[in-house]
Amino acid sequence: MITSRGYAALSAKAPLAPWTFDRRSLGDRDVKIDIHYSGICHSDIHQAREEWGKAIFPMVPGHEIAGIVSEVGSSVRKFKIGDPIGVGVFVDSCRKCASCNSGDENYCEKNMTATYNDLERDGITPTYGGYANNFVVHEDYAVLIPKNLELSGVAPLLCAGITLYSPMKYWNVNSKSQVAIMGLGGLGHMGLKFAKALGAHVTVLSHSAAKEKDAYRMGADNFLLSTDSEALISFKSTFDLIFNTVSAEHDINIYLNTLKLNGTVVIIGLPGKPFSVNAGILLGARRSMAGSMIGGMKDLQEMIDFCGEKNILSDVEIVEPAYINEAFTRTVASDVRYRFVVDARKF
Amino acid sequence: MITSRGYAALSAKAPLAPWTFDRRSLGDRDVKIDIHYSGICHSDIHQAREEWGKAIFPMVPGHEIAGIVSEVGSSVRKFKIGDPIGVGVFVDSCRKCASCNSGDENYCEKNMTATYNDLERDGITPTYGGYANNFVVHEDYAVLIPKNLELSGVAPLLCAGITLYSPMKYWNVNSKSQVAIMGLGGLGHMGLKFAKALGAHVTVLSHSAAKEKDAYRMGADNFLLSTDSEALISFKSTFDLIFNTVSAEHDINIYLNTLKLNGTVVIIGLPGKPFSVNAGILLGARRSMAGSMIGGMKDLQEMIDFCGEKNILSDVEIVEPAYINEAFTRTVASDVRYRFVVDARKF
Repeated sequence: MITSRGYAALSAKAPLAPWTFDRRSLGDRDVKIDIHYSGICHSDIHQAREEWGKAIFPMVPGHEIAGIVSEVGSSVRKFKIGDPIGVGVFVDSCRKCASCNSGDENYCEKNMTATYNDLERDGITPTYGGYANNFVVHEDYAVLIPKNLELSGVAPLLCAGITLYSPMKYWNVNSKSQVAIMGLGGLGHMGLKFAKALGAHVTVLSHSAAKEKDAYRMGADNFLLSTDSEALISFKSTFDLIFNTVSAEHDINIYLNTLKLNGTVVIIGLPGKPFSVNAGILLGARRSMAGSMIGGMKDLQEMIDFCGEKNILSDVEIVEPAYINEAFTRTVASDVRYRFVVDARKF
Repeated sequence: MITSRGYAALSAKAPLAPWTFDRRSLGDRDVKIDIHYSGICHSDIHQAREEWGKAIFPMVPGHEIAGIVSEVGSSVRKFKIGDPIGVGVFVDSCRKCASCNSGDENYCEKNMTATYNDLERDGITPTYGGYANNFVVHEDYAVLIPKNLELSGVAPLLCAGITLYSPMKYWNVNSKSQVAIMGLGGLGHMGLKFAKALGAHVTVLSHSAAKEKDAYRMGADNFLLSTDSEALISFKSTFDLIFNTVSAEHDINIYLNTLKLNGTVVIIGLPGKPFSVNAGILLGARRSMAGSMIGGMKDLQEMIDFCGEKNILSDVEIVEPAYINEAFTRTVASDVRYRFVVDARKF
């Protein structure tokens, strides 16, 4: 077994605390990663607090993992020692269903194996995430990181990044696209950067006037306060695509109305309550409301390569392990620009 | 002017009654149609009873018009006297916007001119529909009907037919598609026929066991009672496309769950209240909920040609003008298999 030092939630009520645990010894196709940076995703908090249904404790959160390969199994072909690699939201899938075969492992019909708070395909062994100094993963579920990218800004790409990149490719964002990004947080700021890099005209819709300056710095063509309902109404039939990262409750109809003929709003953030959808707005211009969740391994590698080429990183605040609980509190309060990453060499 | 004998609602409270009125004299590009059959669409009833907002009275309903050209304007090129032609839900549009330019006049940014209960582009002249012995229309807003098709079964194609055909083409129904049709009424029975003719595997979801025999007669591969929620749950991740023609209120989430990865439910019927949508079901398999409304002139001609080739007609019950009010009552009660058409030569 491989010993790992990390931070874990021992129960839903407990703050995260240092915890030492074992990971599996390397199989033929496994690699060991010395983690350099581990991003803090809002979903880590929901799960550590057992807000998303029954959870597995002790829980080591973390599914935005960037580090350096320190050991490889005997049959590993994709990576060698010293390679910078990344692991995202899942570490396995059934590998047989139509989704897996099409490179959409995130939509595996038998469910992906989540990087933490899940059981391996054996149905027994718990998975432990990236709030730790090392990690073990099958090579098929890791991606090579271009050498020009600084690893701290890469870590959030493995979840926040791919969650925006994958739908942008699926719905074909390009230089003719009029795109809106709803919410400028960990997800939204990646959406803004990707949409711009893909050549689109991008409008940021945010409820916070304080984000306007950042939006323009990151390349936004337009910024609109989503509390300004009159302005929103004036944007009728404007956007081809809206990427909605907002998880607070909101009226979706006013946004649907800003879609052009054949436009789509892609739901990425998940409010606690169902959306109330006035279907007449969909009918009126053949509009769609869709959902998208993370992205598959093919998209993940493509995204990281694209980031290398365009020099795209997440805006991060690097913190030490002892700051994790404070970082959770600030993430819940949206007090982060735009993602916390833990310096995992300090675990 | 051209004199027309038809049936009109003189007010929202009044039953329809015989009414004689004038239509415009033929312009250069206009044709006069001797109407043979005029379909009764549920929307005729909503509008004649002023259930969809303020209406224009006297109102001559009817937007499923099939007849024979009896006179042509001096510059008409598309049609000649004696041609069987059809007119659907609209008779004009701005002809300049992106939607009109792409053949999507039904989504005209300045609104299509509805066949009745609307004003011509001059903003003054009311439009009168097809519950009448004749009609005058600009040739660009009529389609040629293949000679092998019996006109009574053609009339409902002009609204019910195109409303299903257009989204089936847009969302690419083909021989690999697993399609579900929700609701086997005027719209749904056309959807079933088109999806089968396009080669798809088709499941009919209906709340009425009495429709099962008809569904199979029209070619359904499968029939499922939508009241059987256990059976519906067992259909998880089955359909590529669901065409939802149900205008009664219903829980859409149980149907969204039957969509495969990348599947779409196309909303065509419009319930009185908004849908409550559990977005998690969309995210879980990159599913979409879309809306579609009628179809443009290009699709309309293509559909009629396709019907000629495949010998597709609506199942109709032919009635005399004096029966219109009774037909309204029975349509509201879903007591029609599957569309009433009025014998317009009797007006």
